[in-house]
Amino acid sequence: MTHPTTRRTLLRGTAAAATAALATTALTPTAHADTAPYPANRSTDPGTPPTGPRIGILLYDGYSLLDPTGPAEVLSRVPGASVTMLAERRGPVRTDTGDVAVLAERTLDEAGRLDVLLVPGAGNRGTIAAMENQPLLEWIRHTNRRTRFTTSVCTGSLVLAAAGLLDGRRATTYWASAPYLEKTFDITYVPERYVRSGKFITSAGVSAGLDMALYLAARLTDDDTARAIQLAVEYDPRPPFDAGDAQQASAELKARALKILADSQV
Amino acid sequence: MTHPTTRRTLLRGTAAAATAALATTALTPTAHADTAPYPANRSTDPGTPPTGPRIGILLYDGYSLLDPTGPAEVLSRVPGASVTMLAERRGPVRTDTGDVAVLAERTLDEAGRLDVLLVPGAGNRGTIAAMENQPLLEWIRHTNRRTRFTTSVCTGSLVLAAAGLLDGRRATTYWASAPYLEKTFDITYVPERYVRSGKFITSAGVSAGLDMALYLAARLTDDDTARAIQLAVEYDPRPPFDAGDAQQASAELKARALKILADSQV
Repeated sequence: MTHPTTRRTLLRGTAAAATAALATTALTPTAHADTAPYPANRSTDPGTPPTGPRIGILLYDGYSLLDPTGPAEVLSRVPGASVTMLAERRGPVRTDTGDVAVLAERTLDEAGRLDVLLVPGAGNRGTIAAMENQPLLEWIRHTNRRTRFTTSVCTGSLVLAAAGLLDGRRATTYWASAPYLEKTFDITYVPERYVRSGKFITSAGVSAGLDMALYLAARLTDDDTARAIQLAVEYDPRPPFDAGDAQQASAELKARALKILADSQV
Repeated sequence: MTHPTTRRTLLRGTAAAATAALATTALTPTAHADTAPYPANRSTDPGTPPTGPRIGILLYDGYSLLDPTGPAEVLSRVPGASVTMLAERRGPVRTDTGDVAVLAERTLDEAGRLDVLLVPGAGNRGTIAAMENQPLLEWIRHTNRRTRFTTSVCTGSLVLAAAGLLDGRRATTYWASAPYLEKTFDITYVPERYVRSGKFITSAGVSAGLDMALYLAARLTDDDTARAIQLAVEYDPRPPFDAGDAQQASAELKARALKILADSQV
């Protein structure tokens, strides 16, 4: 079984492209370079500095997988952007479930200046460890001095708060952590998907990082570019249920959600 | 600066819990085990077989980051589920942008029987390579024989189609790949977030895997459990723009989205 494919046929899908797909020579990536409707991909030369924003995403043991990866998917489409996963040590960093690991590409010392810092949330264990990790908090404070935006997803705002960066500000966090955030810090909790206060942008739980990242993409570029990114990742959400808003959820559903979460974590 | 934290304070946030947080003994994770409202986390003994569905997510060079990680976030909350990233070789597998790598935990030979197989999509290069990788397609066909559900995100449906699994079926894919899917295979394209045909569930582009995963979570458990998972990951999407539906998008926006995508890929 052979299904000849080209960029044009996969991503354009016109009748003409479908016909062209029947020619096996089209398999050569550069075969139609002269007629290709898209520019060449960006340079992969590691010596080439990014032309767009340098985005650093912090990984630490026990983060929730979607917290860094949702925004990374969106922000990696910002023209010229570099997205770098950072951690105290290079190598795999495991999620709260222990099942999955994303690779940290650079250590914190190697991060350099960042235009955007993103701090993901984690399960209870990971969040507590990060909030008590003084060298990590010091790195966050140091890095924050030169960012354009310092951002968080889910309980990542607790980590920013523990670093002392959100004092006196409005912020959001994971729904179940909101009372803790307000009672522990000098922060006004706002139950929105993302909350901007100066250069700080905090997100609600886990999936809210996607909404925040689109907003951030618009700030880093313009609204039309952000719209194109939204279409590029086909972000037209239509969940089969309408149960994601904690303010509408019953106490029973909340308890069930927290039990499911605790049971899934290591 | 010290912010004593416990599971109860981070994830429950009642006034009582906030008070408890002031006791530094609460930092010991098991200090309040007798009064903890949540059961112990699941066993991390690698010798313990999962009590729930075995979910295998295929990684291959050039996949789009959110395609496997969005569903993994949701499906890892299915009670008792195991989520395993699989690839031809163990170790880091890079995304289409080249910036990020997720670790493959097992080789295809080590995957064993799966209840759910998920095939993510990729950029043009990655999708073409997967569609032409005959051993990979043979493994997909072999694995599919014993799954309860065989699923895809984005251009992952092209890979399933290349494996011959979607002949005569209704399916969806990335919006820009839909004409190619229909013209190349005996498949009826349906422009929905996810489309079920028998045990096959295909998703639209990138972020659509989140919607599909919630639907799948309900099939693997029940609607109320899926709703609790939705709340657990606070999936109450509210993107700042309404540009994610290709059927509503202008030709100009589509062209811009595809250029942004191509430019971001290596």
